[in-house]
Amino acid sequence: MPVVGMVGGGQLARMTAAAAVGLGATFRVLAESANESAALVTHDVAIGSHLSLPDIAAFAAECDVITFDHEHVPGAILAELESAGVLVRPGSAALGYTQNKLAMRERLSSLGVPCPRFAPVVSVADVEKFAAGSWPVVLKAVRGGYDGKGVWVCDSAVEAAEVISHGIPLLAEEFVPFRRELAALVAMSPSGQGAAYPVVQTIQVDGICREVIAPAPGLDPDLAIEAEAMALGIAAQLGVTGLLAVELFETRAGGLLANELAMRPHNSGHWTIEGAVTSQFEQHLRAVLDLPLGSCVPAGTFTVMANLLGGTDPDVFDRYIHVMAADPTVKVHFYGKEVRQGRKIGHVTIVGGPGDSVESLRDRARRAASYLRWGTEDGE
Amino acid sequence: MPVVGMVGGGQLARMTAAAAVGLGATFRVLAESANESAALVTHDVAIGSHLSLPDIAAFAAECDVITFDHEHVPGAILAELESAGVLVRPGSAALGYTQNKLAMRERLSSLGVPCPRFAPVVSVADVEKFAAGSWPVVLKAVRGGYDGKGVWVCDSAVEAAEVISHGIPLLAEEFVPFRRELAALVAMSPSGQGAAYPVVQTIQVDGICREVIAPAPGLDPDLAIEAEAMALGIAAQLGVTGLLAVELFETRAGGLLANELAMRPHNSGHWTIEGAVTSQFEQHLRAVLDLPLGSCVPAGTFTVMANLLGGTDPDVFDRYIHVMAADPTVKVHFYGKEVRQGRKIGHVTIVGGPGDSVESLRDRARRAASYLRWGTEDGE
Repeated sequence: MPVVGMVGGGQLARMTAAAAVGLGATFRVLAESANESAALVTHDVAIGSHLSLPDIAAFAAECDVITFDHEHVPGAILAELESAGVLVRPGSAALGYTQNKLAMRERLSSLGVPCPRFAPVVSVADVEKFAAGSWPVVLKAVRGGYDGKGVWVCDSAVEAAEVISHGIPLLAEEFVPFRRELAALVAMSPSGQGAAYPVVQTIQVDGICREVIAPAPGLDPDLAIEAEAMALGIAAQLGVTGLLAVELFETRAGGLLANELAMRPHNSGHWTIEGAVTSQFEQHLRAVLDLPLGSCVPAGTFTVMANLLGGTDPDVFDRYIHVMAADPTVKVHFYGKEVRQGRKIGHVTIVGGPGDSVESLRDRARRAASYLRWGTEDGE
Repeated sequence: MPVVGMVGGGQLARMTAAAAVGLGATFRVLAESANESAALVTHDVAIGSHLSLPDIAAFAAECDVITFDHEHVPGAILAELESAGVLVRPGSAALGYTQNKLAMRERLSSLGVPCPRFAPVVSVADVEKFAAGSWPVVLKAVRGGYDGKGVWVCDSAVEAAEVISHGIPLLAEEFVPFRRELAALVAMSPSGQGAAYPVVQTIQVDGICREVIAPAPGLDPDLAIEAEAMALGIAAQLGVTGLLAVELFETRAGGLLANELAMRPHNSGHWTIEGAVTSQFEQHLRAVLDLPLGSCVPAGTFTVMANLLGGTDPDVFDRYIHVMAADPTVKVHFYGKEVRQGRKIGHVTIVGGPGDSVESLRDRARRAASYLRWGTEDGE
């Protein structure tokens, strides 16, 4: 079997390591330290920086193909690796669109993908012109934002001025009064095979994903097909290899707008570990190894995933026992991370059967996540 | 989280390592070499012999609890470890019954568990007396048999004489003309919590498990309950911690007879990785860590597991691609073992939905296993 290396030692690499065991692929991780989430469980760990060309090149020399746990490897390094003959999947051209939101917006718009109205802005005057009297306006860092960081909802020119004063490249976007947020997850292999998971609903709090419901309840089947086709089209047009997650707004008018892209396993796809025939982690490995893709068919009626955030008490173990005893069907995934207030330290998944309502599944997932965080079932 | 160490580096430890990732438990393996199945994927591998007290003691010193991938650690070593305060789960008293088939038979009989008629034998005359003119008679090595090794079906005193001539301790058992073979898999925690998986049908060829169908199709519900209760009763009476697999005969008269015991994850439970809410590997970890046990409820209607045996061509990878392409719902598990004719090198699993007949699932699983072995879908 070929050797696949993942740059980055976070929880996505950790869960990919577990998926590689069954697949029989040899899996390696480049982590920044031996204490990182994936480094704690992966057999073959290299320690190095994702910002260092020599570190990644040395790592890649022991792999047949490299892929990524995050989108933070500088584009120049990716291009250098490719010039040197390293198989980089997804490639630098595709990954560039996850690193530059303005380039992403411009490219998606040129492809005809519906997006929020946007414009680059450098001054308060630019923002005011963009707003044209209609606030709020969303300002986004062109580079480096994630989990709500790098996104500011501004209700006035005064608030926009505060963001502009940070001195970073920004784009302005219309504030979309959405009905709900959705995510479309697809995979594409170098051979051109594509596969689409059912479209899910994501529930964000303060810009952080808290819950995922798969498939999105009550979603118009035509809209679901439109979302899957949109994601597959973006993957094909941008030359993505591996997973592509497209975060979407379902607008109040009943349409779709593309929000963000990720080209790796994604929080909105954690439900697939138990909830789909092929997990997103195995699917990503299959795609980057150019193996035939696995079935994306759901294993249950509905699956609910709730992120587990750190609370104030680091001793999660006692609470873990309680959660296991209270609900023997809940599946807890710990990432091996130190507990810090608000940090994603794991997730819980419940796969529903014919008799389970979405609300009862959500309730059980939330109770488990709440108890693990706060020691009470209604803490969040 | 506490640290659990598994003695033995085979495929059971390999799959337990994958289960430990999600559970968040720190998992270590004591393997004989760095090339063993589990040693290839486990983060924390110690190299040593399961026949060496110092090796196991040194390993155990870095663990909160130790458990086993096999039943080959000598009882004297287990007892020494326990005397030294090591948490050994399952304990030496229970494990002793998996190492001595005569002691197992005597104990089960004393508990009232229905077993084939048996007797210790040392001479051909003993065997003839046991047979009382009714052949065949099954001779079994009291110690060390597995996968059909150490079991001889003798049609005559001449054949028995050949086995007796090996000079090893033997017991004789009646030859049971069974309808089919079943297996009951249960878990028991030190706190006394028990959990039972649905009873499965196993299909053996030449003493090696080839297929498992979960749950056993058409099994009388009363018989299923009897099998589960029998396994839970044995686990409780023998003081088993962790998994207990009871291999059973369903007799032509419609009753059950206990055949063999295993106190670890078992081949008859591999289907649980995809086919049950909690996999047997996670369940074993939960039990030995004295965590609340997980749900044993099936994820599908029927799940079929087929063992993948090595063929004559070691290059399984090309055939793997074909199998993935032919059936995107088949789940292949490779053990990272060198391909040798007849050796268990992996397994395939297919979880069925409401529309799938057991025969169609078996057919698909067999095709995949056959193609991986022989390069043709009807090679076995």
